[in-house]
Amino acid sequence: MKNKLLIVGTMAFDAIETPFGKTAKILGGAATFIGLAASQFDVDIAAVSVVGGDFPDDYLNLLKNRSIDLSGVEIVENGKTFFWSGLYHNDMNSRDTLATELNVLADFNPIVPDHYKNSKIVMLGNLHPSIQKSVLDQMHKKPELVVLDTMNFWMDNSLEELHDVIKHIDVITINDEEARQLTGEYSLVVAAQKIYTMGPKYVVIKKGEHGALLFHADNVFCAPALPLKVVFDPTGAGDTFAGGFVGYLAKTGDFSFENMKKAVIYGSTLASFCVEQFGTERLQTVESKEIYKRLHQFKSLTQFDIELT
Amino acid sequence: MKNKLLIVGTMAFDAIETPFGKTAKILGGAATFIGLAASQFDVDIAAVSVVGGDFPDDYLNLLKNRSIDLSGVEIVENGKTFFWSGLYHNDMNSRDTLATELNVLADFNPIVPDHYKNSKIVMLGNLHPSIQKSVLDQMHKKPELVVLDTMNFWMDNSLEELHDVIKHIDVITINDEEARQLTGEYSLVVAAQKIYTMGPKYVVIKKGEHGALLFHADNVFCAPALPLKVVFDPTGAGDTFAGGFVGYLAKTGDFSFENMKKAVIYGSTLASFCVEQFGTERLQTVESKEIYKRLHQFKSLTQFDIELT
Repeated sequence: MKNKLLIVGTMAFDAIETPFGKTAKILGGAATFIGLAASQFDVDIAAVSVVGGDFPDDYLNLLKNRSIDLSGVEIVENGKTFFWSGLYHNDMNSRDTLATELNVLADFNPIVPDHYKNSKIVMLGNLHPSIQKSVLDQMHKKPELVVLDTMNFWMDNSLEELHDVIKHIDVITINDEEARQLTGEYSLVVAAQKIYTMGPKYVVIKKGEHGALLFHADNVFCAPALPLKVVFDPTGAGDTFAGGFVGYLAKTGDFSFENMKKAVIYGSTLASFCVEQFGTERLQTVESKEIYKRLHQFKSLTQFDIELT
Repeated sequence: MKNKLLIVGTMAFDAIETPFGKTAKILGGAATFIGLAASQFDVDIAAVSVVGGDFPDDYLNLLKNRSIDLSGVEIVENGKTFFWSGLYHNDMNSRDTLATELNVLADFNPIVPDHYKNSKIVMLGNLHPSIQKSVLDQMHKKPELVVLDTMNFWMDNSLEELHDVIKHIDVITINDEEARQLTGEYSLVVAAQKIYTMGPKYVVIKKGEHGALLFHADNVFCAPALPLKVVFDPTGAGDTFAGGFVGYLAKTGDFSFENMKKAVIYGSTLASFCVEQFGTERLQTVESKEIYKRLHQFKSLTQFDIELT
């Protein structure tokens, strides 16, 4: 039987402008990217989210066709879907948020479907920490692995609630500046150690084009980002990373540090596809043989054979 | 017989201030850091540089005791040694230069000792590109490997001369911002490809706390920096990296891409020691068993075992 992976997060319309072009309102949202990435693995996935009556059936079908259970996605018929619009600068590392319309997200009250209240893994996508916590509270028992993604916005505005949910999780994924903000420590090694004391025993620090670091106890693992000729659109890369990470862990059911290393590589691999086209476009077309080929690239990118006995 | 490695670069007094403290005038200079790092390997090393009459014998003896040939180090008895002073900010990634006194470096005319004109490897440390070129011009024949380090200052002020020497080298080491400045390309993959057309067939891009990338043809290798609790003083880390890199290559005499990967790991390993104390202090005390232990850390930091057939 497949392991159950429960994902909570936004489903959204995104409008994106990069130096390479701009989009109309396209499919976006953390749960969308996480789900599409995780669906590359043989896992029983459910999404908990909320959309408005304006959310196209095509988008829902796209996720259903990936065997993602959407019974936990509330459709507010007379409401509008969460909308985000952003403009990326030339270096692709900085962006301006042009619009954030919460719409139905403002009153989001997540309901976990009964048959996913025993999920082995829960992935709490970036959302208000109280919403993340309420999902955990609905589970029959503590899941075997809880992974949480968050961002500086919640550290600025809901720090107490964030600390409250962080107590109950196993893995946190944040970027380097957020790790520094959360802990007041510049060294990422020291920051990770401080985060351990807040709850999570595993800390994943995302560094964009510089890759990701996985910390656990005194162990560190470093995965590079694949050096790319073009980063076309970074939107959703962090969520895609998280989706590949939890998807691989859910498939294998092995939550050891050694296996998490591999999960980080899968996450980085899927993120490297995500940034090649706008939004979820590339995640919709990527095939397993392409993923396989890129895993080979990650190996040659990082492996060396200095003999140490 | 040991392979000959010829190093040209500054020998200097540095005065450094970091959040952890400040120094009086201490031993510094590119050739010093490169030489100390390279002397960890079984190689016949000579340095070409210039100092003033104020340069202590102790400093010269420190290098001689590492079996570094100093017959190419000119001592200008009535001159003063190059002096640099810098202040590092809290994040250690930015610094203010407080003083740069060229002194005897202003009229530096490097003389390669006759018995090193057949060196197998030449390491051109960061200096005016015309001085770097004049060292190459003195060699009996083209060395088997020429490695050049440079910086944005020469791109701003002596770009033509820089292009003139770059034509004749095999490996360039620069940081990410410098690679972008030199090529006008944001993507480091594209930047490396443009640099190939300028001469070097290998491009090493140093990214400080984010590690280093090695490019050759369509191959890329990525080495992380060791995540450290404290970066005490970054001065000389780039030169130390270069010294470990060329030292290992000189010892092995193998200039293949596969072997250069290992050289990058040795460079990163030595750089990880350099930043632990002020200036060259840690390089003076580091022992081979410590280096060996840290190579193990680099392995566990980067190696994973996803089976790919």
